[in-house]
Amino acid sequence: MKITDMHVTPIAITDPPLLNAAGLHAPYALRAVVEVVTDNGLYGLGEVPGSVATTSALEAAREVVIGKDPFQLNAIQQGLFDHFGQEGATARGDQPWDKRRIVHVNSAIEVALFDLMGKATGRPVCDLLGGRVRERVDFSAYLFYKYEGAGGELGFGVDPNAAGWAAARQQAALDPEGVVKEAQAMCKEFGFKSIKLKGGVFPPDEEVAAIHALHEAFGAGAPLRLDPNAIWTVETSIEAGRKLEGVLEYYEDPTRGQENMAQVARALSIPLATNMCTTSFDHIPGSVQLGSEAIILSDHHFWGGLRASIELARICQVFGRGLSMHSNSHVGISLAAMAHLAAATPNLTYACDTHYPWQSEEVIVGGRLKFEEGALEVTNEPGLGIELDRAALAKLHEQYKTCGLTERNDEIEMQKVQPGWTFQATRW
Amino acid sequence: MKITDMHVTPIAITDPPLLNAAGLHAPYALRAVVEVVTDNGLYGLGEVPGSVATTSALEAAREVVIGKDPFQLNAIQQGLFDHFGQEGATARGDQPWDKRRIVHVNSAIEVALFDLMGKATGRPVCDLLGGRVRERVDFSAYLFYKYEGAGGELGFGVDPNAAGWAAARQQAALDPEGVVKEAQAMCKEFGFKSIKLKGGVFPPDEEVAAIHALHEAFGAGAPLRLDPNAIWTVETSIEAGRKLEGVLEYYEDPTRGQENMAQVARALSIPLATNMCTTSFDHIPGSVQLGSEAIILSDHHFWGGLRASIELARICQVFGRGLSMHSNSHVGISLAAMAHLAAATPNLTYACDTHYPWQSEEVIVGGRLKFEEGALEVTNEPGLGIELDRAALAKLHEQYKTCGLTERNDEIEMQKVQPGWTFQATRW
Repeated sequence: MKITDMHVTPIAITDPPLLNAAGLHAPYALRAVVEVVTDNGLYGLGEVPGSVATTSALEAAREVVIGKDPFQLNAIQQGLFDHFGQEGATARGDQPWDKRRIVHVNSAIEVALFDLMGKATGRPVCDLLGGRVRERVDFSAYLFYKYEGAGGELGFGVDPNAAGWAAARQQAALDPEGVVKEAQAMCKEFGFKSIKLKGGVFPPDEEVAAIHALHEAFGAGAPLRLDPNAIWTVETSIEAGRKLEGVLEYYEDPTRGQENMAQVARALSIPLATNMCTTSFDHIPGSVQLGSEAIILSDHHFWGGLRASIELARICQVFGRGLSMHSNSHVGISLAAMAHLAAATPNLTYACDTHYPWQSEEVIVGGRLKFEEGALEVTNEPGLGIELDRAALAKLHEQYKTCGLTERNDEIEMQKVQPGWTFQATRW
Repeated sequence: MKITDMHVTPIAITDPPLLNAAGLHAPYALRAVVEVVTDNGLYGLGEVPGSVATTSALEAAREVVIGKDPFQLNAIQQGLFDHFGQEGATARGDQPWDKRRIVHVNSAIEVALFDLMGKATGRPVCDLLGGRVRERVDFSAYLFYKYEGAGGELGFGVDPNAAGWAAARQQAALDPEGVVKEAQAMCKEFGFKSIKLKGGVFPPDEEVAAIHALHEAFGAGAPLRLDPNAIWTVETSIEAGRKLEGVLEYYEDPTRGQENMAQVARALSIPLATNMCTTSFDHIPGSVQLGSEAIILSDHHFWGGLRASIELARICQVFGRGLSMHSNSHVGISLAAMAHLAAATPNLTYACDTHYPWQSEEVIVGGRLKFEEGALEVTNEPGLGIELDRAALAKLHEQYKTCGLTERNDEIEMQKVQPGWTFQATRW
């Protein structure tokens, strides 16, 4: 079996006006879909955060991939590192999302190769990762502060005929009451049991109040998480954290950097979690030395693929770290990959993040994947268990071409609503 | 595909009178061969160090394994841990070999499952581990001090018609001259380029002299290793080590325990290696904190299988540890598994240990695997690429039944030659 081609398709998916520490989500989130094709008529799919730069890096990776046997993950990965160099592999940037090109490229391709290996062997991807330890993967409700609008105030109106979650997600959520309503609608629709609030948007006291409101609305047993995306000082993180002890399941990246996180960790009884201060294997020694967090949010897009994520899981087990999973806006290819990985990772005991409820479009046959009681059932079909809907892909590619966006920049979007607004790595 | 049966066959293989810190090899080394059979007519092979206790543990593991799908490695491993408990999973004992039952059982079964998965998918095992990064796996010459005799003075004579290495390995090697002759014959026959001497047998100065004799005979470029199996004090290790700086490639377990190893490491410029002080994932935090070694010798039999060994490789990469591979007396099933694992482990850059040249029997069709220029070519055949020679297996099982040994005990064998000799955890 040999790889004969690799297609890279940038897409834009409608995204609501979600707020975060870096600003405002644009009306479209960009993703790149990778399709690796083999000489025996199979294809494998991968998906990563998109940008013009990522598209061109993936295009450049074609020459490494084409002609190879898809089982040669080590050789292909080495070829990618040789091609791109290690530069940019460790610095993720200050924004809440991760900008390292080589890990994106590597992840997109590795997932597509696992999909291919699964199809070639008639096995679901989780079986190529050691087999499932759970049939259903729990996800969490991912709450955002948001403006009104289905796809941003900057181009999309609301659908007055929408009902249920589709109606609720059009509403503004700018205070504790709005956040609780959003949570109730999302949990009712999808059955999520864990709840995460993306913070770093309003002054810390308002976000603490939102968590307390969720605690009151959902009861003491509901696992709650708050993620200020590292823009709080150590002092603010500790002050806010004290008010959240006994309330939060975990406190995600209140402040920036392993040293600061370690200071906050020592001061509080709540477990700290991160996808910002310990985000690559190079950061593990510092994490171990400093004790910067109790829980690592893995993300196969950013840790270098599915195998690397399982190696991270072992490291978490060895060093007493809990393991959860991070997400960005995505469609079903990433969701399927996340589910297969989670199914095969014994110590991934926290419900995984997903932005999926905020999106409405898909590129896979059969449309949107369904959560039941907050969980995704892991397929037994070969590979990722999904097929590419080429018409849907073409439509979302067209949307990419016309939307005018070339990379994620939440600051520019925010400035359209609040002129002069600027991103601050530390705000409160 | 379902597992319908699992056969456990203890075997005894002829072993020469090799000396080590714990005494003398018995005329037979014990191994256990595991054959896992599936409902589609396939079988997979595994091999681990043998003993009556290991045989009965493997027999007890049958109920965990039978009825399962061989791809469900995580579930089967969890079943084994549930069955046996974690007890004994971390304490390897003071002897040069490892006595942890659960890791042996888990390893034997996991290798057999990989062999099955490979056969079921038409893929060599290395391709199920990420694919090969090398076509040929380098092994090292594993020298022992030894008495004269082909299978121990305690039952075997020498073959006067033997030639080449077969003749040389019958000779005594009890001083530097004997060690050099042994090395020359072994390297001539197999083409090994790295050379390891099992020490801990004679007073340290004699072993230092043997290393210097090897250095003189093989030249400054020959990678040399000395392994006193942890029976030297810190002071002795440092004193001997100073005489070996610039001569040894690495210095393996001169002294016992991570704290002592760390002291020696700080005093010397030679890299320290271990398969005795950092031997399980539970030991990694201590290794990182103390800096007990520069190189870890992995061993899939003792680290919990092939996947665990790859996870160890990542940990070595993360914490700046080199990676080599440990061996016990073994036949071709273990050798094939070691080669597939090494082929798929990018940072396994040291030549691997193997006792294989000291054995002459086999259980695989076609007989003994061949080294060329010190390396084993990794097969492209499905699974481990070997088939079971059932007549040979039966013969070696019969040898097991008649040899009278129930477990490895080098102290008792040594007492037959040197009455009153006792093992000392620290001797010099």
